[in-house]
Amino acid sequence: MFRFELHKQDGLARLSTFHTPHGPIVMPAFAPVGTLANVKTLEPRDLYAAGAQLVLANTYHLYLRPGHDLVARRGGLHKFMAYDGPLLTDSGGFQVFSLAQRRKLDDDGVTFRSHIDGSIHRFTPERVMEIEQALGPDIAMVLDECPPPLDRRYNEEALRRTHLWAERCRAVHSRADQALFGIVQGGIFEDLRLHSAAFLTQLDFPGYAIGGLAVGETKEEMYATLDFTCPALPEDRPRYLMGVGTPEDIIEAVFRGVDFFDCVLPTRIARNGQLFTPNGRMNMRNAQYAEDERPVQEGCQCYTCRTFTRAYLRHLYKAGEISALRLGTIHNVTFMLSLMREVRAAIAAGRFGEFRSLFLARFRITDQATRHAQRELRAAARKL
Amino acid sequence: MFRFELHKQDGLARLSTFHTPHGPIVMPAFAPVGTLANVKTLEPRDLYAAGAQLVLANTYHLYLRPGHDLVARRGGLHKFMAYDGPLLTDSGGFQVFSLAQRRKLDDDGVTFRSHIDGSIHRFTPERVMEIEQALGPDIAMVLDECPPPLDRRYNEEALRRTHLWAERCRAVHSRADQALFGIVQGGIFEDLRLHSAAFLTQLDFPGYAIGGLAVGETKEEMYATLDFTCPALPEDRPRYLMGVGTPEDIIEAVFRGVDFFDCVLPTRIARNGQLFTPNGRMNMRNAQYAEDERPVQEGCQCYTCRTFTRAYLRHLYKAGEISALRLGTIHNVTFMLSLMREVRAAIAAGRFGEFRSLFLARFRITDQATRHAQRELRAAARKL
Repeated sequence: MFRFELHKQDGLARLSTFHTPHGPIVMPAFAPVGTLANVKTLEPRDLYAAGAQLVLANTYHLYLRPGHDLVARRGGLHKFMAYDGPLLTDSGGFQVFSLAQRRKLDDDGVTFRSHIDGSIHRFTPERVMEIEQALGPDIAMVLDECPPPLDRRYNEEALRRTHLWAERCRAVHSRADQALFGIVQGGIFEDLRLHSAAFLTQLDFPGYAIGGLAVGETKEEMYATLDFTCPALPEDRPRYLMGVGTPEDIIEAVFRGVDFFDCVLPTRIARNGQLFTPNGRMNMRNAQYAEDERPVQEGCQCYTCRTFTRAYLRHLYKAGEISALRLGTIHNVTFMLSLMREVRAAIAAGRFGEFRSLFLARFRITDQATRHAQRELRAAARKL
Repeated sequence: MFRFELHKQDGLARLSTFHTPHGPIVMPAFAPVGTLANVKTLEPRDLYAAGAQLVLANTYHLYLRPGHDLVARRGGLHKFMAYDGPLLTDSGGFQVFSLAQRRKLDDDGVTFRSHIDGSIHRFTPERVMEIEQALGPDIAMVLDECPPPLDRRYNEEALRRTHLWAERCRAVHSRADQALFGIVQGGIFEDLRLHSAAFLTQLDFPGYAIGGLAVGETKEEMYATLDFTCPALPEDRPRYLMGVGTPEDIIEAVFRGVDFFDCVLPTRIARNGQLFTPNGRMNMRNAQYAEDERPVQEGCQCYTCRTFTRAYLRHLYKAGEISALRLGTIHNVTFMLSLMREVRAAIAAGRFGEFRSLFLARFRITDQATRHAQRELRAAARKL
């Protein structure tokens, strides 16, 4: 039911397809995040229109509400959220470590309090597999521990547990219509990442994620980590960089051999009034747009750009209208998915290196201080 | 550019068409409210899909932000909000009296403080005509005073002013592509309403509104007021009952000869999780819907009912997802516009009396205490 095809390589960048029971994912691909079985403000028809190929939902959040059993009784996540394309759930591990209150960790699993009502819950590898199999996405993730990327001691200890848990997840996972992916951890440390990649490869997962990045390290540290991690992963399996990210980070990660991504960034910043253009982000609340008759992005085919002026969108944002959040989200998700389409075309044409240079020359990356604030926002955002 | 056709009368209920520069309004009709040039959570394509024929926007709100001059420079309200159907603006009078802070009234006009920033503004009949002509809807309303409907002294005094202002609005209004409607006031008092209707009829407006209802009186008082007011209005002009209302009130008003309506009710209560069905309202947050696989309303053709279960919608409402507000709004607006379509078909078939009986027998009207709370909500809601 699952099959990976590597069509073409351009440098380290890969054009490939991962076939799932709900259709193919042509990669490099970006997955919008639908935390609670809903990409915030969007409907399935909006995701189809924008060209989404994969949508992520969060196990931790859905386990707490409405509950995985309820979703299973409704026929599973696809039917529940009326979305017919490929879905992926994370393992909930990241949220347990970043969002839940007061957790207690041991080799067998982790006990935590819900961030909603303080109730006590326990995740073990077996329990998480039960939950993800009940939810029923096309791709499920193993339970892992996600330590601060620069803390060597913590990463050594966590990696031991992450590998134990990966083995146990692999042992109990049984749904043939669901692919279970392993997650490589090890912070920014080359020996740990190589060890993790080797250990997980030996468990023969149908796909591999790189976890524990974009959570506090610099861009340079993240890129360096990808430089030594990607070549250590099997060539014939999809590679997923979790929680990334900005357009420039995605371009840099594709350049280093990553196949797909998820991030709340485009949806989250849209709700703050920040919209993507090929020149960088624009803040729609700025006074300079008050009388601007142009669309957010000339040539963009999204409903927002085809229909409304910047002046109108600024009015909606300034007036606090809910519609602003949605129209901004439609644009930002369309921007990301169009960017991935251009990335795929560039690899197909054997000119991804040139595409990368041109994109990065034009796309205004915000300064170091703002980037730091954004990283913090991104880390916080992944909790939601 | 404006033409009223009375196609058929069934009892006092009227099937008619009011032709405007942006197309015909086949009546009885209901206008969703787009306070800030946006029906909250909806897009123009949603309004077209639901069958909207007329949309209302609020002069007071648009005057304060983004400002009528800015809207005029953008090419007017239709172009600004990218909506190509008939539009109507109120005069702002109601909001000045219900929403603005500290107002000072004299025969010439009213001075008030903005509810947003406390800044001081003045509305006179001439100023309001300038604003509405700058905004450029198909239908504009005269400036009026909207007193509590049961206060005789206040209504007498206010009516004198309302008539002075109506004359002045009529005198300065000059846009040929905009129809200016008069507003009959007079509270629940028959002699005042008849006097107002006669006075305004003599000014020869292309349409007449009934103002000052659904703001505190009982349903019985409102219906009685319509009983004596409608026959006093010219037969060959459209009749507009402002700020009404509930499905049952609309049915009762059509039965008494009203042609069209506006109200925030369907959009407002959708954001509170209350959705319309032919049996009455349902609160989507209720636990009873947690595992309910049915659509909100069997047979409803809206996107929400065609796509999602009650169980999913309840989950979205409970989890505080923005999408819930929008999906609920899509349904409630579709419900109201479908109801109006059924009303028109019933009049066309000469069986509106039967339709009214069947609808009211089935539609569960909430009890007196809740109705009172709802009236208060409705009064508050009209401010937004």
